[in-house]
Amino acid sequence: MQTRACVLHAQEDVRIETCEVGEMGPQQVLVRIGAGGVCGSDIHYYWDGGIGTIRVTEPIIMGHEVAGVVEAVGANVTRVRPGDRIAVCPSRPCGKCKFCLDGEQQHCLEMQFFGSAMRKPHTHGGFRDRLIAEEYQCEPMGDKVSLGEAACTEPLAVGVHAVNQAGSLMGKRVLVTGAGPIGALLIGAVRVAGAGEIVAMDISETPLKTALAMGAQVAINAALEPDRLLADYSANKGYFDVVFECTGVSAVLKQTFPVIRPRGTIVQVGVTGSADIPINALVGKEIRLVGSHRFHHEYAEAASLIREQRIDVKPVITKTLPMEQIAQAFEIARDRSSQMKVQLSFAD
Amino acid sequence: MQTRACVLHAQEDVRIETCEVGEMGPQQVLVRIGAGGVCGSDIHYYWDGGIGTIRVTEPIIMGHEVAGVVEAVGANVTRVRPGDRIAVCPSRPCGKCKFCLDGEQQHCLEMQFFGSAMRKPHTHGGFRDRLIAEEYQCEPMGDKVSLGEAACTEPLAVGVHAVNQAGSLMGKRVLVTGAGPIGALLIGAVRVAGAGEIVAMDISETPLKTALAMGAQVAINAALEPDRLLADYSANKGYFDVVFECTGVSAVLKQTFPVIRPRGTIVQVGVTGSADIPINALVGKEIRLVGSHRFHHEYAEAASLIREQRIDVKPVITKTLPMEQIAQAFEIARDRSSQMKVQLSFAD
Amino acid sequence: MQTRACVLHAQEDVRIETCEVGEMGPQQVLVRIGAGGVCGSDIHYYWDGGIGTIRVTEPIIMGHEVAGVVEAVGANVTRVRPGDRIAVCPSRPCGKCKFCLDGEQQHCLEMQFFGSAMRKPHTHGGFRDRLIAEEYQCEPMGDKVSLGEAACTEPLAVGVHAVNQAGSLMGKRVLVTGAGPIGALLIGAVRVAGAGEIVAMDISETPLKTALAMGAQVAINAALEPDRLLADYSANKGYFDVVFECTGVSAVLKQTFPVIRPRGTIVQVGVTGSADIPINALVGKEIRLVGSHRFHHEYAEAASLIREQRIDVKPVITKTLPMEQIAQAFEIARDRSSQMKVQLSFAD
Amino acid sequence: MQTRACVLHAQEDVRIETCEVGEMGPQQVLVRIGAGGVCGSDIHYYWDGGIGTIRVTEPIIMGHEVAGVVEAVGANVTRVRPGDRIAVCPSRPCGKCKFCLDGEQQHCLEMQFFGSAMRKPHTHGGFRDRLIAEEYQCEPMGDKVSLGEAACTEPLAVGVHAVNQAGSLMGKRVLVTGAGPIGALLIGAVRVAGAGEIVAMDISETPLKTALAMGAQVAINAALEPDRLLADYSANKGYFDVVFECTGVSAVLKQTFPVIRPRGTIVQVGVTGSADIPINALVGKEIRLVGSHRFHHEYAEAASLIREQRIDVKPVITKTLPMEQIAQAFEIARDRSSQMKVQLSFAD
Repeated sequence: MQTRACVLHAQEDVRIETCEVGEMGPQQVLVRIGAGGVCGSDIHYYWDGGIGTIRVTEPIIMGHEVAGVVEAVGANVTRVRPGDRIAVCPSRPCGKCKFCLDGEQQHCLEMQFFGSAMRKPHTHGGFRDRLIAEEYQCEPMGDKVSLGEAACTEPLAVGVHAVNQAGSLMGKRVLVTGAGPIGALLIGAVRVAGAGEIVAMDISETPLKTALAMGAQVAINAALEPDRLLADYSANKGYFDVVFECTGVSAVLKQTFPVIRPRGTIVQVGVTGSADIPINALVGKEIRLVGSHRFHHEYAEAASLIREQRIDVKPVITKTLPMEQIAQAFEIARDRSSQMKVQLSFAD
Repeated sequence: MQTRACVLHAQEDVRIETCEVGEMGPQQVLVRIGAGGVCGSDIHYYWDGGIGTIRVTEPIIMGHEVAGVVEAVGANVTRVRPGDRIAVCPSRPCGKCKFCLDGEQQHCLEMQFFGSAMRKPHTHGGFRDRLIAEEYQCEPMGDKVSLGEAACTEPLAVGVHAVNQAGSLMGKRVLVTGAGPIGALLIGAVRVAGAGEIVAMDISETPLKTALAMGAQVAINAALEPDRLLADYSANKGYFDVVFECTGVSAVLKQTFPVIRPRGTIVQVGVTGSADIPINALVGKEIRLVGSHRFHHEYAEAASLIREQRIDVKPVITKTLPMEQIAQAFEIARDRSSQMKVQLSFAD
Repeated sequence: MQTRACVLHAQEDVRIETCEVGEMGPQQVLVRIGAGGVCGSDIHYYWDGGIGTIRVTEPIIMGHEVAGVVEAVGANVTRVRPGDRIAVCPSRPCGKCKFCLDGEQQHCLEMQFFGSAMRKPHTHGGFRDRLIAEEYQCEPMGDKVSLGEAACTEPLAVGVHAVNQAGSLMGKRVLVTGAGPIGALLIGAVRVAGAGEIVAMDISETPLKTALAMGAQVAINAALEPDRLLADYSANKGYFDVVFECTGVSAVLKQTFPVIRPRGTIVQVGVTGSADIPINALVGKEIRLVGSHRFHHEYAEAASLIREQRIDVKPVITKTLPMEQIAQAFEIARDRSSQMKVQLSFAD
Repeated sequence: MQTRACVLHAQEDVRIETCEVGEMGPQQVLVRIGAGGVCGSDIHYYWDGGIGTIRVTEPIIMGHEVAGVVEAVGANVTRVRPGDRIAVCPSRPCGKCKFCLDGEQQHCLEMQFFGSAMRKPHTHGGFRDRLIAEEYQCEPMGDKVSLGEAACTEPLAVGVHAVNQAGSLMGKRVLVTGAGPIGALLIGAVRVAGAGEIVAMDISETPLKTALAMGAQVAINAALEPDRLLADYSANKGYFDVVFECTGVSAVLKQTFPVIRPRGTIVQVGVTGSADIPINALVGKEIRLVGSHRFHHEYAEAASLIREQRIDVKPVITKTLPMEQIAQAFEIARDRSSQMKVQLSFAD
């Protein structure tokens, strides 16, 4: 069987090509993909030919935020049936290294992650009409939500994992810096986790409006009110119990130190090369700065939150284009002032 | 009653002066000081007139690492008796602010800390023949250790608090960067806490020899072997479970990221203005970077560790001078290549 | 000024009496009470003359779940103003003992708790028209909820504290045994804390219906289906991550061991004298059984959850009687098959 | 190749028999066993034909505390070489079930544990001259300790795991009830973990003397001084931060509730059918009672503690007999008043 797929050959060179779907094993599932979200890393791959030290050096099928419908299942599959609507988890940990055997699969030494150029050969992704997935990658999504919403499972899982890095949020005061797709979905997870108060900060109105729709009580536009965060939240050594830093901008991270209380936690979600942080504040206030990388069991939790409609992800999806228009999708998606999540639709 | 005291008037201007001891209240203790350790912050006050944004703007009695003998006690005192040898805890939290009522006294909004120029008026310290202390500041030290050893209680408490920031160290692999007085005493605490392996790194031989004496198994001279840390400990995403960073040097902190394992903890003990840290490693490996500031109940724990001779602090004490030679003590103490802890002796 | 109050003199002997309100100090608040909930301990005091080893040995004003309107404030009060609708926290920790200075005020050695016969003299409670409260006891409740709902702050705080004993509940599978007023309100808190699935068990229909209204997905009537819990949830060493045991019945606690997963947590909320527990299961599955006692900062969190209408407590309030009918309230409240929370109303 | 082995056929029927060693695979190791410790469960198997619900229903090679010398290694083995002295870890988790993939291998759904009658067919153990072990089961023990000491790795690992269940013990006050082989070795681990004070309680002098040798400061003979624990340690709601309950006796567990401080932790190590515990104390003091079952990575930690001579286990070994006298060993080992650990020696 053959399938169309979105193959990135080089910077600004993505093509719709036909390739083999492959043989389905007894523990595998044939999925007809319906929707796929364009992620920040996809955008960097397309416009920059990579992200940081990760470079696209060979043709790669893009995409790791996908959902679809089960077409056929292997002989031993029990988790899903033909016709089921599912989200497809993009991670395949090896299950044998020390990290996998310590419940820390996101650090697997041999991780295969859909559409990632981190390893060679690159791992092909999910922007394609048909796909063979492992049974354990398939998360049933029920009938209440669209495949586009289901395709938000992956970025929501990133947010749920970040929430879990912070410990219990029950009654806590939370600041989220950066309200793009990850930050906005993360706000939904923070809300579900029982936070007492959520303040969102960004430099554009579209993310801030989305942040309020996802559960923030206060939205600060740092471009218009650059001093408000410090003025409102720095008294008595700082106001927030937890900060989720989703911009990856050094200057933004720095701004959070005066407004977090002693012994508070900053979860760093946004990635950048390096950042300058105020060590005297980190030490004097005993702040805990902890990184958050992808997710593991949180993929299933995120699927459940969308499936049970405990988090409505629709405010985050701002545009959907057919897969053939993937280059245009990258064009649109880079405009943060108007777009949150741009998705592709697949069909034959 | 009058007492001699070491009063800092300005940069490089410290004088032996006579002042009133004051009235002893019913819950207070009159202490004849016997030994006092010179701390890094004292050295900065003397040579630089302050440390970072903290400036000495008025005459201040120096010193916060002191031990002595009880001369008299107030009517309600039960914890110590005349003749007892004690270490004197330098911190007086207010006991009423939200941090004090949450068990986080080291962040007290109204902290009085001996010999600190952080507040105005400055809080006078313990480099003096006689001192009135609160009963709760007095930690009995028994008869087995010298007053010089007893005066190491405060810097050891800093190490014990840092150890507590890391959670259980039982069986853990630990790296300590910077083996000056704080780092070396901290190594003693890391050893007591059950660490499986301790590696120390510094750029001078005296600290490294002391580190081995305090319980490290491996000592790396980064000046002589700049590449050894990376070469020996970075395989499989990193070797160490916990790092205690005691230098406050940005480049040293940066070096620890490749050698700490995913989800490991870096406890930042050394202070500096700001530091450049690799956010991609912090996020990708989900490293936890947490500050450690002073101590609270760890002062009593440190006193017990010295009193019961579970930690032998003598290797750390390299020089003792009479209080009259305090200026010379500052001269000697700044030479890290030959000196660890320099102490003053008091007597009348 | 005088006030009417509900005074318990002995078993089944409660009287409406008039007593002095007392002088309001500069940090105190005069409150006109509007609603008061009857708690299980009140019911035991009335019908049994005490609870366990705690005996009512002198006349005591009953009640610790109260809310009202501020009538006047002392000169230094800033937190509330006349006319504000508030919930009154029943606990007055000493603020000086080792537990208070360690952030564990619920274990205060000198706790004054409204309407409690634990200490002698007994501490008078809040079933009265007017009351002098400390400023810090007053929690503003806004204008959206009734005083009856506000009076549910205390039992909800018990639930929030129990939730905090369990750590993060995000995505967790939770069993709640006993869905009386405490269990039902606790379910609301479990839901807010992000639990993935909530199963409630009881032996009466009224509590089970309330449990579903408060956020449980499954309600098991153990009287009708005694084997269902075991049958549905014991495979693969057990299903639930966390159990909240709210009955205080030994046999019920025992039943939870086969259905909790290895390393799961049972939070014991219900009180009884002693219980027989299967040590082989506790050890073999490394189960964590932890008690939960009252609350501290959770009172403010519970007030916020009610005030912001994140938890609707109305399903729990099944009856309201004027204070003069307090004896009848105790008569009604003991019937668990028809009643959840019975409240009193106050007015002059 | 053939080997002699200690085979239990039924209650009080253990025989020395000859059986096949089997084929060594490429990832396996041929071990000549030198020493094997008799465990409490072995004693129950021999005298009672089982322990609790676990019954010996078919012939089983006994023993799970063994050490020996490597005779040969498979082609892919790198961890050990012929001639190495090793301790052999008795657990073989499946590496594939949900518990193994969550770092909780001690709860493996398909665990093969040496000499255990829990599963059918029973898993054969290590009381035999020669044994094929998996490479990962082999822990190098160096040249400083005897094989008898090396064979204490398994019961020490039980103690280290229990210590890890309690979190950090740094500076903590610890009570250990029951100072048999497990309790005494556990005291060594508690000491290494930095406990501030260790009190041991037992009803015989031999265990109590051993407890002092292993690091306890106080030894209470509850047979001679039944009231001392309560008298000395119950003031102000209790003295101990952590209790390790190693007797499995209901009455002993009950005694610990008045002497543990609020929010303290009781780690239950000793196994019994069921126990009566005071729920009012558990709830009122918010005590955490947590089970501890076997070990996982702690086996390697225990091996290191013995190998590096950080814990001297010799005081625990009170008798060694040749394997042929295994029945006599069971006779001797049941006398707790004179014996701690009885070991067998193997040789050909």
